[in-house]
Amino acid sequence: MHDLFNTPNDRRGTHSSKWDILDSKFDVSSEDGIAMWTADSDYPTAPCVLKALQDAVDHGVFGYFTDFTDYNAAIQWWMKTRHGWDIDTDWILTAQGLGNAIALCLDVWSQLGDRIVTFNPVYHEFEFKIRRAGREPVQCPLTLEGDTYHLDLEDAQSRLDGTETMLIFCSPQNPSGRIWTAEELRKVAEFARRNDLIVVADEIHHDFIYPGETFVPFDIAAPEARDRTVILTASSKTFNIAGQKTGNMIIPDAKLRETMAQRLRSLDYSPNALGLKMVTAAYSPEGAAWVDAQIEHLIENRRIFDEAVNAIPGVRSLPLASTYLAWVDFSGTGMEFDEISRRVRKEARIAPSPGPEFGPGGACFLRFNLATQRYRVEEAVKRLQEAFSDLQ
Amino acid sequence: MHDLFNTPNDRRGTHSSKWDILDSKFDVSSEDGIAMWTADSDYPTAPCVLKALQDAVDHGVFGYFTDFTDYNAAIQWWMKTRHGWDIDTDWILTAQGLGNAIALCLDVWSQLGDRIVTFNPVYHEFEFKIRRAGREPVQCPLTLEGDTYHLDLEDAQSRLDGTETMLIFCSPQNPSGRIWTAEELRKVAEFARRNDLIVVADEIHHDFIYPGETFVPFDIAAPEARDRTVILTASSKTFNIAGQKTGNMIIPDAKLRETMAQRLRSLDYSPNALGLKMVTAAYSPEGAAWVDAQIEHLIENRRIFDEAVNAIPGVRSLPLASTYLAWVDFSGTGMEFDEISRRVRKEARIAPSPGPEFGPGGACFLRFNLATQRYRVEEAVKRLQEAFSDLQ
Ligand SMILES: Cc1ncc(COP(=O)(O)O)c(C=O)c1O
Ligand SMILES: Cc1ncc(COP(=O)(O)O)c(C=O)c1O
Repeated sequence: MHDLFNTPNDRRGTHSSKWDILDSKFDVSSEDGIAMWTADSDYPTAPCVLKALQDAVDHGVFGYFTDFTDYNAAIQWWMKTRHGWDIDTDWILTAQGLGNAIALCLDVWSQLGDRIVTFNPVYHEFEFKIRRAGREPVQCPLTLEGDTYHLDLEDAQSRLDGTETMLIFCSPQNPSGRIWTAEELRKVAEFARRNDLIVVADEIHHDFIYPGETFVPFDIAAPEARDRTVILTASSKTFNIAGQKTGNMIIPDAKLRETMAQRLRSLDYSPNALGLKMVTAAYSPEGAAWVDAQIEHLIENRRIFDEAVNAIPGVRSLPLASTYLAWVDFSGTGMEFDEISRRVRKEARIAPSPGPEFGPGGACFLRFNLATQRYRVEEAVKRLQEAFSDLQ
Repeated sequence: MHDLFNTPNDRRGTHSSKWDILDSKFDVSSEDGIAMWTADSDYPTAPCVLKALQDAVDHGVFGYFTDFTDYNAAIQWWMKTRHGWDIDTDWILTAQGLGNAIALCLDVWSQLGDRIVTFNPVYHEFEFKIRRAGREPVQCPLTLEGDTYHLDLEDAQSRLDGTETMLIFCSPQNPSGRIWTAEELRKVAEFARRNDLIVVADEIHHDFIYPGETFVPFDIAAPEARDRTVILTASSKTFNIAGQKTGNMIIPDAKLRETMAQRLRSLDYSPNALGLKMVTAAYSPEGAAWVDAQIEHLIENRRIFDEAVNAIPGVRSLPLASTYLAWVDFSGTGMEFDEISRRVRKEARIAPSPGPEFGPGGACFLRFNLATQRYRVEEAVKRLQEAFSDLQ
């Protein structure tokens, strides 16, 4: 399946946010810039997903959708076979993607002005969503020891004032790709209980697990926290179909679930038919084989990227246990962030995600998206080495 | 383009709500039943929409969408060329279909327990959405004089108690296809001002206007009401893409618009990419030509249907000025509704929408969806004539 991930393409002019605003957003050349920011992939989705879509085009009628049986069964099958996680199909509610799911959780289980806890550095949109909803973020720093981030729940506890109502928890962590152990997850659940927090466990990156690593779903590690837990998963990163805005809220607790279901009904939510058909096709044995091949592809991208980037003095790409998002520490260069950013954008002509967006701990970092064709990774590292060649 | 609308197909087993729940919902044979309820069409969408979708499948990458310029421009072009309505592109907000848009309006501009006004018979989901949001419907009857429905604003006024906050107004009206005149629309606007109501003008059926009829957008008739008006339009009925859940909220007033925009941001709304691409392709000269051909097709369906149904003693299909939804009065048969419904479902094996769902005035009516291949209309009227042959 090698070719599936390496066939050259051009996403410019396709309404791609990753590629079509390089210039306006990052001041990176739209001529030959390389987009390595937003977390979507540059290669096409799995053939089984394309086939489902092609069948829909051939049928040609796009009326109202009914019957979630095979959609829900596909999600259940995926969680079981890929994650060893037994879920009931009636635990599944569908949101318009996980950004929307997070916003819905904030809407349902917190009030204007509430304080919402996150562990940082973390996916920058957590903070933005919290603020857009009129809530206040409490960003608790992770500690970086060697190459590995750790939770410091004592420090986190000291930052709370009792008005917190929710924890938005990223597992595996974006950025850094840290996979939390069952032990750590249990401690997070304890922390949530002690502080009476709803836990929104965002597991969107759970399918990108590298060999030798083990991902544990929050619900398996801490079933005792079910009465306060909402688990978010999606096929959108895994299968590169984020544009279709179809994500899962998996809520084992009947009371929590009914609260959300009632909100969805009152907002007259109904997911889009093509998104549902794509997800159903994705979560299948064919889809699984494609994901395995994608991981092989990413392993090699990661190896090439890390080797080349780590060869630049003062630059360190943290070893990725999960995700396709390389988290690169430039602090060893002794340069200001602005200078690092300028060289990457203007000299290397690459647009990564700026580390400071991810909150405390991101100051001298950049996040590079490796979910692209091999030739782009090779070109990117060549340019990065050139842009920092004076450090050699 | 005749064939585009008459090619036989089978929508059973395609997740079609119209076709896949005939048996469970209506007790109509799934073997040879004819689905004439839900307002979607049985023939494929326009070739230009299919082409846009095919291009997306061929590209194969379904990442995040950016840049609404051509999407908004297409909507603007459509309103101008098809409806003589000048809108600014920044008046446009996008919802997940108009059911969702109505729910969002209720969420933003009314409170739990508020009373919400409708003119009935009207699209049954207005009532359901009002109730699901915990508001209370105030259903004001239209008066039927001869074949034509009229607003009775004096009667409506007498039903209000001052706690009403919103009017959900269907224009053209579903069911009955009544097109309101500019004069009537101005009176509705006055009524709304007098009672301090937000007007949600649902114009989803505005593209199905039969020759000799003139549709006037609410905003053209009553620009003085802009400070309280939200206009809903969509390509979903027009192009048969309701499954893609992409509709417009057009809000000329900056203050109203910002309130809704803020709500959309806080819920992290972003429409699905394929829906956006389909709408953009639909609202085009090619799309317009296809709609014109579709209307030709519907005119003939309507003629065949009305002639045959009106030949049944005591049955009267109201002349349709707009929509593809024939509103048929069975009261002249002297039968109970249950008997009418039984004959239609069990003998004619047809599933229309039951009139009583549409509220006051719907008691002895059934609504038949004519947006189908000609052969289905012909078969349906044959069966109806048989089912009521004892009346001859
Ligand atoms: C941790 C995390 N959650 C949510 C999202 C966004 O999900 P969606 O595209 O479904 O809104 C992302 C995207 O990068 C993410 O990294
Ligand atoms: C008047 C009216 N409004 C709204 C809708 C539903 O719109 P959507 O499919 O975009 O939710 C319908 C569908 O029949 C309708 O007739």
